[in-house]
Amino acid sequence: MHGSSSEPREPFSAATEPTELASRATLIVGQSGGPTAVINGSLAGVIEAAGRSPEIGRILGMRGGIEGLLENDLVDLSGFDGKSLDALAETPGSALGACRRRISDEEADDAIARLQDAEARYLCYIGGNDSADTTHRIASAAWSRRYELAAVAVPKTIDNDLPETDHCPGFGSIARYVATAALETSLDTRSLPRTYPIKILEVMGRDAGWVAAASALARQDDAMGPHLIYVPEHPFETDRFLTAVREVHRDLGYAVVVVAETVKDRSGQPVARDIATTDSFEHPIVRGTAEAMVRVVEQELGLVARADRPGTLQRSSAALRSSVDLAEARLVGVAAVEAAVAGAGDIMITLHRVGNDPYAVETSRADLGLIANRVRTLPDDFLAEDRTQVSSAFRDYAMPLLGPDPFPEITLMGKS
Amino acid sequence: MHGSSSEPREPFSAATEPTELASRATLIVGQSGGPTAVINGSLAGVIEAAGRSPEIGRILGMRGGIEGLLENDLVDLSGFDGKSLDALAETPGSALGACRRRISDEEADDAIARLQDAEARYLCYIGGNDSADTTHRIASAAWSRRYELAAVAVPKTIDNDLPETDHCPGFGSIARYVATAALETSLDTRSLPRTYPIKILEVMGRDAGWVAAASALARQDDAMGPHLIYVPEHPFETDRFLTAVREVHRDLGYAVVVVAETVKDRSGQPVARDIATTDSFEHPIVRGTAEAMVRVVEQELGLVARADRPGTLQRSSAALRSSVDLAEARLVGVAAVEAAVAGAGDIMITLHRVGNDPYAVETSRADLGLIANRVRTLPDDFLAEDRTQVSSAFRDYAMPLLGPDPFPEITLMGKS
Repeated sequence: MHGSSSEPREPFSAATEPTELASRATLIVGQSGGPTAVINGSLAGVIEAAGRSPEIGRILGMRGGIEGLLENDLVDLSGFDGKSLDALAETPGSALGACRRRISDEEADDAIARLQDAEARYLCYIGGNDSADTTHRIASAAWSRRYELAAVAVPKTIDNDLPETDHCPGFGSIARYVATAALETSLDTRSLPRTYPIKILEVMGRDAGWVAAASALARQDDAMGPHLIYVPEHPFETDRFLTAVREVHRDLGYAVVVVAETVKDRSGQPVARDIATTDSFEHPIVRGTAEAMVRVVEQELGLVARADRPGTLQRSSAALRSSVDLAEARLVGVAAVEAAVAGAGDIMITLHRVGNDPYAVETSRADLGLIANRVRTLPDDFLAEDRTQVSSAFRDYAMPLLGPDPFPEITLMGKS
Repeated sequence: MHGSSSEPREPFSAATEPTELASRATLIVGQSGGPTAVINGSLAGVIEAAGRSPEIGRILGMRGGIEGLLENDLVDLSGFDGKSLDALAETPGSALGACRRRISDEEADDAIARLQDAEARYLCYIGGNDSADTTHRIASAAWSRRYELAAVAVPKTIDNDLPETDHCPGFGSIARYVATAALETSLDTRSLPRTYPIKILEVMGRDAGWVAAASALARQDDAMGPHLIYVPEHPFETDRFLTAVREVHRDLGYAVVVVAETVKDRSGQPVARDIATTDSFEHPIVRGTAEAMVRVVEQELGLVARADRPGTLQRSSAALRSSVDLAEARLVGVAAVEAAVAGAGDIMITLHRVGNDPYAVETSRADLGLIANRVRTLPDDFLAEDRTQVSSAFRDYAMPLLGPDPFPEITLMGKS
């Protein structure tokens, strides 16, 4: 069953659709955590591969992530064809809905009961570190109850911080977005240097600086922004920051800074002015990192500064989606079903880079025990020596993920 | 002379390039104020039309707006061909650089002296309300000194607030950007309603709600966001806002709000928490409107809220540029030169809509005295009755400006 054209559809309950395929097993798929620009590509890959697997009689989707499974809120996902799968893959947001929920061992048992009710033997859960933990707990609960279940995590995170994989679906698209944003806001700032000379672009990245680092990828020479990049792997030092901004402004008449929203000072305190609360995974919700930097620039340097904070827009843009990223998101969805029907469980699909010129990847598998709750931060050799720019090694790593011709061309005739 | 491919070029001084065309007059062009996604389209139009005008021997560009003229910082703009003009037109930011500067009558006299030095008989100044004022002052100074000068303002503003024209180049592109952003952030918020149920998208619009209103254009039904839109033409009332958010959240489980950064309360005070300073035109720089709304939602309703504040990214996006907008930006640039060589001065080029199905425009002209420092706000009949949505009249007005197929298609299977 698929949504027609651009019209949102009413969902319906799987229970209302009897199936003659009950002799074959059910696959249940869910989406978890923050959306990416390609998360529905992985969903489309799962549906596509499940549809051609003789072992699978029915495919159900959890509405609202693992909560949909626990609450028996499932939707039948049969009936897609190639065209409607492509349309699904290109839809922004998480088409099934998602949640942020760390399940308890008791809830893992409840999940097994729901899977048994649906005669599900295959589980594909699309998400990041926390979702890998959920998948691992369900796999463990199934094992301890002797319930035959292939539980496979499908990697998804803009943060690019999952271990055991070359990169994560979702990263190539946000990398293209932030690099384009940094280029365009640099050109914008350069256009009016005497009015708004300092720009702070705040980007995502919970514990790792992959997204902030990607902002450098459209930079063509030292005069172009972003001139200074701050990642959460290293302490943010206000004095060094102010000195660096003053120097760039002195040389060019303007300065463009990119900061990960999660940067912290030497004592481990967030630079953000407001630490409002924590989300349901106990990750702090930080707010106002760029605003705090705007304030210190204006107070200490006497220069007018402005912040651009695209927020969730950076992970949801269809226009700046990477075609390579979308294809790989679909690929890992297909690989998850193939692994599941081959009997693999308690694993995550990984991407292995087999070449960079031409760029090519293969899928592989990693044990969830190696992945759940672990974080892969930006390696030191992906940053330049002073840690406010990236290295050529990072460029070589990241550029192929953004797809062909990722940036607008520019013609300049003004100052600096 | 043009920039080759995507490489920023070193500018050179017009004084270093003697021209054999001194017997024909010079045209000087400048860009002013904040960039738009199509401001270089108008520059390309001016260069294109000047290149084919036998009356014009030389075309010079002000670097950094009117300050470039006052400081004799001019760049030769001959030597573009069709391909390099197209590349220029598609470059984000203001290729010549710009400024925000309200010139005095004395500076207008200085400008005339600089124009005389360059043997300039034609002046095209690309900008908004304040730039129309500058062009008007220079035209008046030329008149009082009996200096023959055709001074033509080329309309440019994302704010869409210039009088006497159906709409302003720059608006169609930012309208597409904010409508797409509102759609995508709605899909993102809908994906994780239990974690981050309330989203505030803050958009530009100095005195008028055109940009905020445009956020509704990708909305397909009442369930989709943006659910509530706040424009600066009407006072922002916190109690009514909270009641409205509570109702949408109760019905849908999430709510997406769009607010113009300049909304004010009944007493005329900005909703923004910080009013840091004023820019060089004495317009207040407002900051923190969305953050103030996030805070009141969390405090009064107990719902987690998040702000997306794309800032200058919304006016600089090449990927979401409207092809109609770009073509019209170029058209008004061409029309400005044609008007100037025909002897018209102290005017702004306007766009007149001659049909909506199919959509078509013609250029016309309006006296600068009717335009300078006047603001066209959003008419009442472009808003729905409760003023938190737009009317069908606004949709009919705005949609053709966004170009063909402006939005991504969506397929939904989740809740709400």
